[in-house]
Amino acid sequence: MSRVEWTIDGMTCSGCSSRLKRVLQQIEGVTSAEVTLETRQAAIHFDQQRVNTATLKERVESAGFAVLV
Amino acid sequence: MSRVEWTIDGMTCSGCSSRLKRVLQQIEGVTSAEVTLETRQAAIHFDQQRVNTATLKERVESAGFAVLV
Repeated sequence: MSRVEWTIDGMTCSGCSSRLKRVLQQIEGVTSAEVTLETRQAAIHFDQQRVNTATLKERVESAGFAVLV
Repeated sequence: MSRVEWTIDGMTCSGCSSRLKRVLQQIEGVTSAEVTLETRQAAIHFDQQRVNTATLKERVESAGFAVLV
């Protein structure tokens, strides 16, 4: 199991952060995701056999957010 | 040129609506998109030769919103 923690740009309310969390949790291979509006952090646990960080980043971006890393 | 107007569920602040607008405008074949938070409406002009409504709906959903139609 792998874990990334990213700084996310573009979240402006708790609706944004809970939506991003839901988007992340729906990705196959993601086992859990925590998104914190105040600190702009997204912590994602995932199975490297099933999904990679490029795909995760792509999904965050297609939801309209930016990954600052 | 075609136009759809959908009711969108899940927008909770102006950050949400401007993000969805940006997501829509980046889709190939979309010529313009207007998203209004207050009325929950998204109006999308698009070229039917290049993109269809199924794809548009999919992109809205992968951004974490729901199309109520």
